[in-house]
This record gives sequence, structure tokens and C-alpha cells, in this order.
Amino acid sequence: MSPTPAPAPEGPLTIAQLAALAGVSTATVSKVVNGRSDVAAATREQVEDLIRSHGYRRQRRPTKSSALIDVLFHELRGLYAIEILNGVEEVAREHRLGVVVSELGGRHTPGQGWIEDVLARRPVGVVSVFSGLTVEQSERLYSRDIPLVLLDPTGDPDHDAPSVGASSWNGGLTAARHLVGLGHRRIAVITGPDHMEASRARLDGFRAGLELAGAALHPELERHGDFMIEGGREHARALLRLDDPPTAVFACNDGTAVGVYHAAAELGVRIPEDLSVVGFDDLPDAKWMIPPLTTIRQPLKEMGSAAADMVVALASGEPLAQQRRELATALVVRRSTGAPE
Amino acid sequence: MSPTPAPAPEGPLTIAQLAALAGVSTATVSKVVNGRSDVAAATREQVEDLIRSHGYRRQRRPTKSSALIDVLFHELRGLYAIEILNGVEEVAREHRLGVVVSELGGRHTPGQGWIEDVLARRPVGVVSVFSGLTVEQSERLYSRDIPLVLLDPTGDPDHDAPSVGASSWNGGLTAARHLVGLGHRRIAVITGPDHMEASRARLDGFRAGLELAGAALHPELERHGDFMIEGGREHARALLRLDDPPTAVFACNDGTAVGVYHAAAELGVRIPEDLSVVGFDDLPDAKWMIPPLTTIRQPLKEMGSAAADMVVALASGEPLAQQRRELATALVVRRSTGAPE
Repeated sequence: MSPTPAPAPEGPLTIAQLAALAGVSTATVSKVVNGRSDVAAATREQVEDLIRSHGYRRQRRPTKSSALIDVLFHELRGLYAIEILNGVEEVAREHRLGVVVSELGGRHTPGQGWIEDVLARRPVGVVSVFSGLTVEQSERLYSRDIPLVLLDPTGDPDHDAPSVGASSWNGGLTAARHLVGLGHRRIAVITGPDHMEASRARLDGFRAGLELAGAALHPELERHGDFMIEGGREHARALLRLDDPPTAVFACNDGTAVGVYHAAAELGVRIPEDLSVVGFDDLPDAKWMIPPLTTIRQPLKEMGSAAADMVVALASGEPLAQQRRELATALVVRRSTGAPE
Repeated sequence: MSPTPAPAPEGPLTIAQLAALAGVSTATVSKVVNGRSDVAAATREQVEDLIRSHGYRRQRRPTKSSALIDVLFHELRGLYAIEILNGVEEVAREHRLGVVVSELGGRHTPGQGWIEDVLARRPVGVVSVFSGLTVEQSERLYSRDIPLVLLDPTGDPDHDAPSVGASSWNGGLTAARHLVGLGHRRIAVITGPDHMEASRARLDGFRAGLELAGAALHPELERHGDFMIEGGREHARALLRLDDPPTAVFACNDGTAVGVYHAAAELGVRIPEDLSVVGFDDLPDAKWMIPPLTTIRQPLKEMGSAAADMVVALASGEPLAQQRRELATALVVRRSTGAPE
């Protein structure tokens, strides 16, 4: 009862038809269609030739009952996740998609159960926030023609997927310029984890900003943190107890800045009179810190929307304008920064 | 081609079979099965008699691809939502359910699109957080045998659904006792919106606590707020500018307490030396306020888990032990309260 060979297909080809004609796997065709880079150049060209001459048609249109988009969080903690989720929800509402939220409980790659559940519910696509899939897991998504978009990737293996981020390097640069412009020269930085791209980019931009202004970053003022409040407090204590303490600190996320505020309160250091503080994120509570936090805003909600937009585009077979979308950061000046006394 | 009449059914009956035998609608049977109270006593008895003699069997078992639970938020804002979502996720993981998150953008009842999407995706059930469905919307869920559980209901029409809350009245009472125990007598309260049950219960418990201790609530010290930071700040400013300002204030949620901190900072009022502050919620950032906030903890994550547990139980046809689950609140003493100076 094996089917008779299909006649030479007419009109746009499905992934299965393209794979049969090119003599490659459906996963490979899916990668080409989804704009991934990890396909041999010759294979890519061959598949693209076929698409040019025949056209491409998605095998599966989402039906009403499977109109879902999956969002996978590294962890559902803090306002960071809420902002991103709001951005995804906005796009999802527009397209009448249900948003399925999963979290990894702090792990960086999901377990086997998660991928099986995703394959079973067949969402139009997956947004992975701050968490990487294993190569095998993303292969399984691609083989089912489920597009994957990464938001703020951490430097994990699957870097061929389309992604969304913020201009972290520029944010770091802007933070440095703001503090130098106020007259600070002895400026400290408390970074996030070294393994995260966004964290490294903030530090690099900051260092560049200082160097361009002729105010080099002193080694004892460079502290490698973890984006946590506790870590920020500890590093700030150490900085404020130096013989020659800094007059300003760039905390590479708002949580770290909260820790700096605590260390300052403990040690009787006034913000901004004795210490200027710049954060990074502009979470909704930054403006409610006492004093309100000067920070580099990254548009988390818009990043969530952008990632969801990319998933929807890929799911409809539209080509992406860019493989990587980087949204602008901006300085928000509040009352935690001022001229050194 | 109409089907021949079914033979007298054997074994447990489905909702459709029960409805046919009782001569009522499936929605009515579903209400009885789901433990709702808005069914005429005689009808309920008749249906329950049938269930007792024949047994009850759910019509539809969730299949792998529809293994979803829907969570509907009034608004996805703040850590409140994240905590509840984490609780739902925990139960969902255990049962391999995908969690579909929707929000109403601040409205209190969902639009027509939402209910249609829910009916189309056929989740095992719906948890509605801090938002009410219209009677017609919940009827539509019941008619499809999709159970609904309310979390922290606001006093909206559909009060027959099973629900989860926290012991708000006891929390208010505990706050009053704590402050009276420290020696305060001139104690203010800033409530949440009057139309929310939880908000009224906190105020009533607080007032009872003061009265039981012989320290009546003075009318000028009772401020009706809105659970927002801005509102808390305004009310606290007004309280602190009284000729005889309070020495302590019970802010009926943590956000309101943040507003109180701001007003105090503006007016040079020290916490706790000049003003003790008690919040309500114990959101994850309460311990990171300066000084760390004494507050009434409500177990939001556990409440999310309890609501999801109830949905799962109802979906499997298990009777609920209780129509209303109320989780305990507890006082968490930190550094924002002390004896009056």
C-alpha cells in the first residue's frame, strides 16, 4: 500500500517536496527556509534554486485550535519577564494566538519533556528568552517546521537562529559618557555574568566610553557580578571600602543597582551626593527607587513584540528582513546621578 | 442519517447523557458537576441522584495536543502576576500541561475574542486571576465542560465558581496587633479599591484588630486608596501633614507601602523612627526596600498552585474538597516597624 510516486509537483513546493527534489532532509530545507546559517553553501544554493523556480508553500497552516505561540523563559522571575511577556502578548492578540509560557526554573536548556510537549501542541513558533535549546532540540523544532527566535541569547550553542537583542554596547558607552560628562573620573563598574553576551557588550561599551573620554577603567574598579541584588550589594561594599572609593558606579542591570543602594545606605554613603549610580534595564520600579534611578533603558516589551513578530513572519513563510534585530537603548536621567562633590 | 437512539446507558454517564435523562441542559449538569451554587435545589438533587446511581464520566479527556490550562490575568503587571504564574506553572509541569497566558490590559472582563479562542483551544480549564467573566462567558465555558476557578475574585458577578484567596481579614487583624503591640495608638490605614473583596477584608480585619485592642481607627486616619504607588504616596503625604500625624500606617499592599516610603523621604520622616510601615503581599522586592518592609505575606505562588490544582481536579471529574480555598497570611517582621519614639 505504499503511495504511487507523486507526479512532478505543480505550483509552490512544500518542505517535503523540496527535500525530495534536492535529496536532503526536511530539517535541512527547513533551515534554509528559516534563514539559518548552519547549512553547507552548496546545499543552500540548491534549495534556494528550487524555491526560486517552483516557489515555497508552508506545509501546515495553523488551525484555530493550534493557534499558539510558545515562549520559553530561563526563569520567570522579576519584572524583566513580565515586560517581555507583555510584548509577546500584544502581537499574539493581534494574530489571535494563545501564548503558552514555560520556564526552566533557572536551568539554561529545557528538559526532554518540554520539547515533546511543544511538538505535540504544534505552536506557530517558539520564542526562547535568555535560554538556549540544545542543538538536538532546535533540530527537532526545525524538522517539524516550527520556527525558533531567540531573545537576548546568552552565548549558548544554537546561534544560527534569528534573534532579538538591545544595543547593549551602545548602552554601556552612553552610561560612561553620562558619568564622564558630569565630571566623574573615578568610575566603577559591576558587570553581569561573563558568559552572557549582553553582559560583555555592556562592559565593553562602557570601557570604550571611558577610554574615548581619556578616563581609563582602573582594574580595582572593575567588578564581575551576576546581575543579582545580593551580588551588587557585595561588590558595592567592596568598592566603597577602598582607600580611594569611586565617585560613580555603573551597575550593569537595575537589580545590581538596588544592591548598590543597599551598600550605600549601610555605609552612610549618600546617592547622588557621594556616589552617582547608573543602572541598566529601566524596569518599571527603577523610577520608584529612592532616589529614582538613572538608567539605560532597554525596550524589553518592544523586544518581546519584535521576537513574536519574527515568529509570525517565519510561520507565514515570509522572509525576515534581518536575522538579528537590535533595538536601541537610551539613557533615562533621574536623580541618582550628579556632579561629584 | 440521524443516529438511532442510544440504548439505556451502562456504567458512568457523560454530561450529555445526564442532561438527556434529567431533561435539563448540559450547562446545568456541568454546573452541578463543577460544584456551582446557581442551580435550583430540585434540579441539583435530581442530577446528583442520577450521578449517585449511575456514576459520572467526563466526556472529553485532554489529548496530548490540547493539554493546556488557560490563565487569564486582569493585567500582567508587577511581581504579583509573576508569583501566581509560577505557582500555576509548577502544577502544570507536573501534569504536562502547557500554560496559556492572556491578559485583559486592565479591563475586568475579557472581550468576545478571548472566549472564542479559549473554546477553540479547549484547555482542561481556566484560572481567572483578579478578573471576572461575564455570566454569559462563564456559561459558555460550562456548556463545553471547561471548568473555571477564580483567584482573588474582585466581587464581580460570577461568584458561583470555585475560588482561591488568602485570609485577608486575618492579615489585617495581624497588622493591627503588631502595631498596637509595639505601642502605637495613632495608626493610619491606606486601603485598596473599595470594590475588591480582598481590599475590604483587609480593612475590616485591621479595624477589628484596633478595636479589640481598644485603639479605635480615627476617621481622619482612614484613607481609601487604589493599590498603586502614586496613590500611596499621595495619601501618605496627606497623613503626614496632619496636625497630629500618625506614628504608624498599614498600607494595604506593598505598592502602597512604596508610595508611603516616597512621601516619608520627601518630608524628612524617618522609617521606622518617626513612622512605622506595614505592607501587605510580601512581593519578592519587599525585603529589598530601604529599610526592608514589614509586611503581611500572602502566599501568591501557593495560591496559583491551589487554583491550578482545583482546575485539574475538576477536569478529571474529582469533586472539590472545598468550593473556596483560603490560604493563610502571615506577618513578616523586617525593619520598617518599631516602637513609637
